[in-house]
Amino acid sequence: MKNFFNPRSVAIFGSMKEGKTGFEIVKNMVEGGFKGDIFPISQSEGLIFGLNSYPDFKNLDLDLAIIAIPSQLIPSLLEDLGKEGINSVIIISAGFSEVGNLEQEEKIKQIAKQYQIRIIGPNCAGIMNTETNLFASIEVRALPGNTAFITQSGALGGVALMMAEELGFGFSKFVSYGNRCDVDEADLIKYLEDDPQTKVIALYIEGLKEGRRFLAQVKKTVLKKPIIAIKAGKSKAGMRATSSHTGSLAGEDKIYDAAFKQAGILRVDDIEEMFDLCRGLVYYPRVEGKRVAIITNSGGPAVMTADKLEELGLIVSEPSQTLRNRLKASLPPHVSLGNPFDLLAYGSAENFLLTCEALAPEYDALIVIFVPTSFMDSTIIAKAIGEAKKSIKKPILASFMAGRLVKKGIEELKKYGIPNYKIGERCAKVIQKIYLRTLKISG
Amino acid sequence: MKNFFNPRSVAIFGSMKEGKTGFEIVKNMVEGGFKGDIFPISQSEGLIFGLNSYPDFKNLDLDLAIIAIPSQLIPSLLEDLGKEGINSVIIISAGFSEVGNLEQEEKIKQIAKQYQIRIIGPNCAGIMNTETNLFASIEVRALPGNTAFITQSGALGGVALMMAEELGFGFSKFVSYGNRCDVDEADLIKYLEDDPQTKVIALYIEGLKEGRRFLAQVKKTVLKKPIIAIKAGKSKAGMRATSSHTGSLAGEDKIYDAAFKQAGILRVDDIEEMFDLCRGLVYYPRVEGKRVAIITNSGGPAVMTADKLEELGLIVSEPSQTLRNRLKASLPPHVSLGNPFDLLAYGSAENFLLTCEALAPEYDALIVIFVPTSFMDSTIIAKAIGEAKKSIKKPILASFMAGRLVKKGIEELKKYGIPNYKIGERCAKVIQKIYLRTLKISG
Repeated sequence: MKNFFNPRSVAIFGSMKEGKTGFEIVKNMVEGGFKGDIFPISQSEGLIFGLNSYPDFKNLDLDLAIIAIPSQLIPSLLEDLGKEGINSVIIISAGFSEVGNLEQEEKIKQIAKQYQIRIIGPNCAGIMNTETNLFASIEVRALPGNTAFITQSGALGGVALMMAEELGFGFSKFVSYGNRCDVDEADLIKYLEDDPQTKVIALYIEGLKEGRRFLAQVKKTVLKKPIIAIKAGKSKAGMRATSSHTGSLAGEDKIYDAAFKQAGILRVDDIEEMFDLCRGLVYYPRVEGKRVAIITNSGGPAVMTADKLEELGLIVSEPSQTLRNRLKASLPPHVSLGNPFDLLAYGSAENFLLTCEALAPEYDALIVIFVPTSFMDSTIIAKAIGEAKKSIKKPILASFMAGRLVKKGIEELKKYGIPNYKIGERCAKVIQKIYLRTLKISG
Repeated sequence: MKNFFNPRSVAIFGSMKEGKTGFEIVKNMVEGGFKGDIFPISQSEGLIFGLNSYPDFKNLDLDLAIIAIPSQLIPSLLEDLGKEGINSVIIISAGFSEVGNLEQEEKIKQIAKQYQIRIIGPNCAGIMNTETNLFASIEVRALPGNTAFITQSGALGGVALMMAEELGFGFSKFVSYGNRCDVDEADLIKYLEDDPQTKVIALYIEGLKEGRRFLAQVKKTVLKKPIIAIKAGKSKAGMRATSSHTGSLAGEDKIYDAAFKQAGILRVDDIEEMFDLCRGLVYYPRVEGKRVAIITNSGGPAVMTADKLEELGLIVSEPSQTLRNRLKASLPPHVSLGNPFDLLAYGSAENFLLTCEALAPEYDALIVIFVPTSFMDSTIIAKAIGEAKKSIKKPILASFMAGRLVKKGIEELKKYGIPNYKIGERCAKVIQKIYLRTLKISG
């Protein structure tokens, strides 16, 4: 896998006309600042993004080949690559099993086997490694981060990258594996298990080909890193669509669900939930128990969050009498000394900090819900929560609500490694999933 | 209620020092461009935002009084107002039943009764009417729109306004009614039933005092306008918090749930879901059946949406053979002629328009999921969907994914009155709720 993610030199095979896939990949590689050599391979002479293009690859020292030429031309190119000893190939091009052309896919598999070439694809959106600025894809370039995202659907991969960009969320690696004629989820998870940049592995799957091998790998990897998955194609219509568009028959959903649970995969329903959970797990891989405290200056949102926590089986437990007395001695009157801890109009930075620190020993996770009035500075509160995080050992999740009044505060929280969610209910869901993971890997 | 929402003249009682509630309300009224007269009432002489302040209200012709003075001074002011025949009063000030001061709240209720004064509040965030630029509140000013939002929690009201501002979502009216010593949900719903600016009524409730009267009013109003509600305080912790902070005991959740369902209220879980549903209902008050078509250029997101639709009891039905033949004759090969209808790389404006128009007769609602590549213009697709909306009579909901690449497209959709959602699953949830409403009011 090393040549896929850390190549010293990459060749791109495809049309170098503007707007064509080959051109767009070279553009992404150059603009992204790839640290190795880039060789556009094209019959048309001349410079592309300041790079020489080559009519042939045979005298180049290549680690990785990215192919975006018409599918019928691929087998012979693959043979040529094999003869030259190039054994890492990404095939972006479509026109294989996903359109019913099983024969063509079988052909490239045979050639790969013969020359010991590893293939990612075909019919995929490529790969990225933000550590080495490798953007071997036409999709929006990922920001650097600690989540690896592996997706069967290239389009869904593109969506995820655009949503992440909007959130300011980063990735360590991105892999769209398409028809999966060779490299599959298990191979990728195995590689990512030891990748120092990757703290969380997220998957989008429509169907598995080698379920047992996948689950065996997952069981091993989840002990080191959390694995999150969307498994799409649950419904009749969803199955129809998945079997038509990626060439695999989606399995029965219940079997998947049970197997995922047993293997320790955190299954999420949609891509928003996936991002929520990744943003939590990157900072907090464990939540050791069920007791969650809500600290707020705003009744309504705290009530809804308490409702959600209990619905999910977590406990919005009351403080001990000792703790209550301690809070009573430090906080203004009228403040709520029960959980949710509502500081009301006394929700100053000092009181937020003091309350978080006092509560930490009795709770397994804290949710801070802050609602500013139009003349409050949310960055000051964010700093206080950040300081609290430094001094306590428990996960703190935040919901600074809402819009432009908390924008700077949320930026500030990020500096301290505190994930912020639009509503407290999302914090609740994230804590529950991390708790379930902790239970699984501890038990 | 006329004097609350359409007053010709408003007096604000409170401190006019910067940052104080009285000052902030005057500021909001002036900056919001209120169309009537504004009278700041304050002992300190001088101009405030270019307005004269008055030491006394007695020679002024007032329709509405907004009170933000300390609670212990309110009874005598209320008597004075009553004697002058001023019968519409909003009390922003806290310090009543929510802090256990039941006696003080009883006192103002008696005075109100004696002088036939109607009160909104106390302990509330005020009201807004975007039609007349009445912003009698310290909260962020609402944009104009067609949803009326009524909230028991003032802070939650503030959050909703800030979230709406970020979404570009507008309100017809906003009412925070706090402790509800007089005007309650039923009064407000009755008024809004005939308000021409209001198409959808949304509520945030922690507990009802007069359940039967409320339900009787709702049953009548839902036949004319949809009513959405969040009922918070389901959990033990949530109930603890609601009884402590608004002075009412939250009822058992199951009873609420059954009563809401029976009355035709669309219950939602959180504020994001509330906005999603309001944005749908404003344009589409009815969905006549269960058959939903998905039109897309992107497999993965369409599969997840199909999964969600079926999970919610809707039908991702296949087209008739006649329709299939018609599509086959007009669309390029490889395009999926089943539901989800995946146009693949042939997702041009022309093909989106053609497909929407062809599908409309056989489906009850359409979801368009569009994912651009980095060189596609999403506004052209948005225009095509907009044109389709004009020619067909079925609801179209969109999910243009994602981030900066579809920002302009989403703006364009808005011009045509097509709501856009971050993910297709949200469209599915909205369609289901509107369908349930349609069933209820038709049956």
